[in-house]
Amino acid sequence: MSRVAFVNGRYLPWKEAKVSFEDRGYQFADGVYEVCEVRDGCIVDLPRHLGRLRRSLSELRIAMPMSEAALGVILREVRRRNHVDYGIVYLQITRGVARRDHAFPPPGVRQSLVVSARKLNFERNQATAARGIAVITVPETRWARVDIKAVSLLPNVLARQTARERGAYEAWFVDDEGFVTEGAASNAWIVTGDGRVVTHPTGHGILTGITRQVLIEVIASLQLALEERPFTVAEALAAREAFVTAASQIVMPVIAIDAKPIGDGKPGPIARRLREAFHRFSAFSC
Amino acid sequence: MSRVAFVNGRYLPWKEAKVSFEDRGYQFADGVYEVCEVRDGCIVDLPRHLGRLRRSLSELRIAMPMSEAALGVILREVRRRNHVDYGIVYLQITRGVARRDHAFPPPGVRQSLVVSARKLNFERNQATAARGIAVITVPETRWARVDIKAVSLLPNVLARQTARERGAYEAWFVDDEGFVTEGAASNAWIVTGDGRVVTHPTGHGILTGITRQVLIEVIASLQLALEERPFTVAEALAAREAFVTAASQIVMPVIAIDAKPIGDGKPGPIARRLREAFHRFSAFSC
Repeated sequence: MSRVAFVNGRYLPWKEAKVSFEDRGYQFADGVYEVCEVRDGCIVDLPRHLGRLRRSLSELRIAMPMSEAALGVILREVRRRNHVDYGIVYLQITRGVARRDHAFPPPGVRQSLVVSARKLNFERNQATAARGIAVITVPETRWARVDIKAVSLLPNVLARQTARERGAYEAWFVDDEGFVTEGAASNAWIVTGDGRVVTHPTGHGILTGITRQVLIEVIASLQLALEERPFTVAEALAAREAFVTAASQIVMPVIAIDAKPIGDGKPGPIARRLREAFHRFSAFSC
Repeated sequence: MSRVAFVNGRYLPWKEAKVSFEDRGYQFADGVYEVCEVRDGCIVDLPRHLGRLRRSLSELRIAMPMSEAALGVILREVRRRNHVDYGIVYLQITRGVARRDHAFPPPGVRQSLVVSARKLNFERNQATAARGIAVITVPETRWARVDIKAVSLLPNVLARQTARERGAYEAWFVDDEGFVTEGAASNAWIVTGDGRVVTHPTGHGILTGITRQVLIEVIASLQLALEERPFTVAEALAAREAFVTAASQIVMPVIAIDAKPIGDGKPGPIARRLREAFHRFSAFSC
């Protein structure tokens, strides 16, 4: 099946979906992105993703290239043209194409906009969640503003590769004080011995995950106790359960950290409950 | 005049010089670059730049896409086709094009290679050096491995833009301990009251500038005293002279830091001497 991407105003076959080598996304990582889950042909929590996109752009002083409504139309159209019923849509906006110079280009340079979509294998993801994943810990090496969802993802790339080479799926960053900040492409959570759900507070040290935000509502509605506070690797190793959240994974149980089992080494009941309940709290844009 | 860039094996008109939106340079900042000065139609210190490139690639475990000799041929050809007698050549190598996934792509994915060239205005640069530039200081916000010359330059972009908005040309990053690490696109130097030249030592906290390395040889040959050690903003403000080094600027005198004059507020004699002597110590690839 031929895939299609939206690139700067046009729907193009994948092979022709190109950007200038002088796009500031390519030379400076001067851009932001969003990944949304697609489920039953609908985009999950699109308004929240567009809200975060607006914030990321605002922090970098890149103007929205069009209204959120128009962006939504393009996202849905790219999903439709790629026949994605279950999977993800990807959106990237950069400061545009200009002669290479670190400082912002002159007014009038248009932002670049790319949207693509991809099918994921639902059964395989469910099977992964049923088994649980292993994570490793790595030192926090990222820049000071990871709350901006920017494409400057090189440390995340290196962390994820290290995880893969150690037989794990995700890497958790650990800051100078020994606290887990978040995963390379997910938020990190634990469940304490007395059943409280713990995750790092928002701020400049983590990205405010959309799945994280929705999950906080799920946790409240299930009348579970939530603590937004940092936790150490030692506390995570002693936890009853652990899991990660991301748009493409929803709630993914963690069964081992640095090759040591968490709880009984199987996905925990709270993670499973949260995963099952999650989409009752999501908004679907179809 | 129509400009030409080399993109993945072909010399292309500027407008057609494009890369896939799935190039890992675009989606992950997963690539490195080099900028070399061109002078009298020759590339300055090319072997040193290619040596640093090899190191950057090695740190990211990206293989060299071809021999250094072959890269040199392309760099010289791009310079020639763009008729650049004075200016820069730019080279970027990324981990290539692959389905979006943080971890490294499977073996067989070819690195991307882009080379471009641009004229600079020699007289204007000389005039700038004769006047000197202003710098500002900003908090160090970058990732832990800035010794790798990667394209993850978003903090540098924001720092340079802040400099411009404050009427300055460059921004110096200042770490948590109050030490100046380096500029957003240059190394930072001062000259103490007793004539010693001071710059931050190499390590993970700064990029080892090629111009910096050559200048150390110039300093030795002029029998000036060199200290590779961190210095604070306060020490810089009390310095007799200050300057920055970069391939496109060589030795550029700094006459003000955070709007306060350095020395007598004019380019200093040591910076001028170093600038004049510099190219006697450079290798020219023609």
